[in-house]
Amino acid sequence: MTSGKGFQAFPRTEYLRRLSSVRAEMRRREIDVLFVTSPSNITYLTGHTAFTAYVPQGLVVTLDAEEPKFFLRQMDAPAATRQTFLDPNNVIGYSEDLVGNPDRDGYDRIIEYFHETGLGNATLGLEPAFLTLKQFGSAQDKFKEKLPKAKIVDFSKAIDRIRMVKSDLELALMREAATISDAAMARAAEVIRPGVREADAAAEIVATLIRGANGKPGTALAPICFCASPYTGTAHVRWGEDEFREGSQLNLELGGVRWGYAVGLMRTFIIGRPSDRLRRMHEAEVAGLENALNVVRPGVTCSDIASAFNRTMAKHGLKKESRCGYAIGIDWTEPTASLREGDMTELKPNMTFHMMLGNWVDENFGYVISETFRVTDSGVEVLTKTPRKLFEL
Amino acid sequence: MTSGKGFQAFPRTEYLRRLSSVRAEMRRREIDVLFVTSPSNITYLTGHTAFTAYVPQGLVVTLDAEEPKFFLRQMDAPAATRQTFLDPNNVIGYSEDLVGNPDRDGYDRIIEYFHETGLGNATLGLEPAFLTLKQFGSAQDKFKEKLPKAKIVDFSKAIDRIRMVKSDLELALMREAATISDAAMARAAEVIRPGVREADAAAEIVATLIRGANGKPGTALAPICFCASPYTGTAHVRWGEDEFREGSQLNLELGGVRWGYAVGLMRTFIIGRPSDRLRRMHEAEVAGLENALNVVRPGVTCSDIASAFNRTMAKHGLKKESRCGYAIGIDWTEPTASLREGDMTELKPNMTFHMMLGNWVDENFGYVISETFRVTDSGVEVLTKTPRKLFEL
Repeated sequence: MTSGKGFQAFPRTEYLRRLSSVRAEMRRREIDVLFVTSPSNITYLTGHTAFTAYVPQGLVVTLDAEEPKFFLRQMDAPAATRQTFLDPNNVIGYSEDLVGNPDRDGYDRIIEYFHETGLGNATLGLEPAFLTLKQFGSAQDKFKEKLPKAKIVDFSKAIDRIRMVKSDLELALMREAATISDAAMARAAEVIRPGVREADAAAEIVATLIRGANGKPGTALAPICFCASPYTGTAHVRWGEDEFREGSQLNLELGGVRWGYAVGLMRTFIIGRPSDRLRRMHEAEVAGLENALNVVRPGVTCSDIASAFNRTMAKHGLKKESRCGYAIGIDWTEPTASLREGDMTELKPNMTFHMMLGNWVDENFGYVISETFRVTDSGVEVLTKTPRKLFEL
Repeated sequence: MTSGKGFQAFPRTEYLRRLSSVRAEMRRREIDVLFVTSPSNITYLTGHTAFTAYVPQGLVVTLDAEEPKFFLRQMDAPAATRQTFLDPNNVIGYSEDLVGNPDRDGYDRIIEYFHETGLGNATLGLEPAFLTLKQFGSAQDKFKEKLPKAKIVDFSKAIDRIRMVKSDLELALMREAATISDAAMARAAEVIRPGVREADAAAEIVATLIRGANGKPGTALAPICFCASPYTGTAHVRWGEDEFREGSQLNLELGGVRWGYAVGLMRTFIIGRPSDRLRRMHEAEVAGLENALNVVRPGVTCSDIASAFNRTMAKHGLKKESRCGYAIGIDWTEPTASLREGDMTELKPNMTFHMMLGNWVDENFGYVISETFRVTDSGVEVLTKTPRKLFEL
């Protein structure tokens, strides 16, 4: 078997374009070198999707080199060599001696590299929220101590903001992910029945998320929220030990994933007839969803969208406490804009959001519906096609 | 539907015993109050398994109150009320205004609580590696700034060390998880065939991990490593776009999960006849595994186990660069002891380890085998039952 590249979700030119936007931001902030540690930003800049962020790793982006250098654990380096667009010489595996070693870790190797290559007194951009690992603690102080002549600059969320606007190639992957989300939701409607164990239904739904749709498999699993009675008043639990019964409700949140890109989708299922309270909530939420989608176009703000939803809910005498959604893309939630009153982020064409209208009213009552949408030149494209109904089974 | 508790994996007495060990450690270190933020430690001390750690949350453990107080996002509070052993009054949901808000977050609410309850100048134990979140950055400085009279003490890994020794009740759950791991590995041997898409095989394996075994479902999914040719030289990738072919190899790592507790298992599959190189590696690794297991008993060190493996490999003219495993329990890897030469952690009865003998030799060659074991009073109990063979399909 010869060395080579694996499946490439994007051409090299796409990554070079992304890197060039990042370098423009570095220049604007007078940063010489960047150490990128957010796993989603590493995916964005290289195509790496192996789950290797449990130990120190990161990309070194300089202003002059066309490609970044990717430092990661030796045993994970071949994944990066195959998965990323990088020249194999730019993938640097550090010694296994640095794993589970209380005295030195992978960050020490990277700091050495800065010294070796004359970057010891550079202006260095870091992503501090991604310099902390379960087994290694926080490494930001280490960078400060061991690079005393460097000027450390916080580059948090800068790449995340760049990746808010998707390219056509990214949108094509997201549409594939959306089709998988639809298929999994349709499978849920088939398998949720009285007498079926929650776990058996979840197994079918998750298997569909992996098998994918139209010949395109899901390439990873995002966590699914499987909030079945009596957990319908809460947002983030999984299937349990029980069977569905007559009257059981399920609030389901799932998302297909294609090479890092996730598309979220939520729907509510009820076995038997819904209560009046549930039906009224559903009607208000769908009206709110549709009014909010009608507002979407370039130039309006995230706040405007949330207001449109909240006003509709108020007309129905209802309220949702939590925000109405967030930017979505690589690894689901992007830590940038929220669909929330007061978030003045302006929409631009090809931004993508998960309008997430889960409404957990009290311990025993909740309802969920959502859509993932793209901002078009003049309005909105909803990526998923699942009917906006309360599924009565 | 009335308020109440959901499925409880452990009785209240079990949690009170765990809390009492933690308080003993607090007294030893003269700590008045602890803010526990490691999600695994929260599971350990309360039974909470909902995935709510994407926003600030944590347990406040004091020396005098029998139960901790659990602060988390309002929409996630009902999950904690049902899942944990805690009195509902000790589950405190903070306002949704603190999510996606650049000025104030959930940590501010918790710091306020410290001031309100006279803990502003207490000696406060923190777990700094778990005070950093994707959307919120690092909060350790916030605690230092807003609690200027408190003495902050690093309590990292202290609870993790307490939970290294499992109770009989924890071991019962781990044996259930082990049976699920075995079932999923057996399913892999059934479905991996030439012409089958990697994703379709993965779907079957993952569905088995959820359906579980002996009527006990898997209650969560740990990531599976599905390293199929040509990715056999690397450790942490998933299924791809390809089909299995004659000659394909799969290095599979998976684990059943029961209410937080994971049991890891790795085996190598080959379609057709293995190469001599692969067969020699398999024979050396199985011999190394068995020699290492023979060394396990209370009083020997993690280093002794790794040495037994490494000596056997050397006799076969082979070597493994990475460590031979790690402590396992809640959420898979425990950040405490490694099966690694130089790790002088002494084995005690009812400690559990994943002896992880994955060996990634070069970009195109790797082999995996593992067992999860318990240290008994006089030796070792291997939790899984899958044959220690190279699966030829």
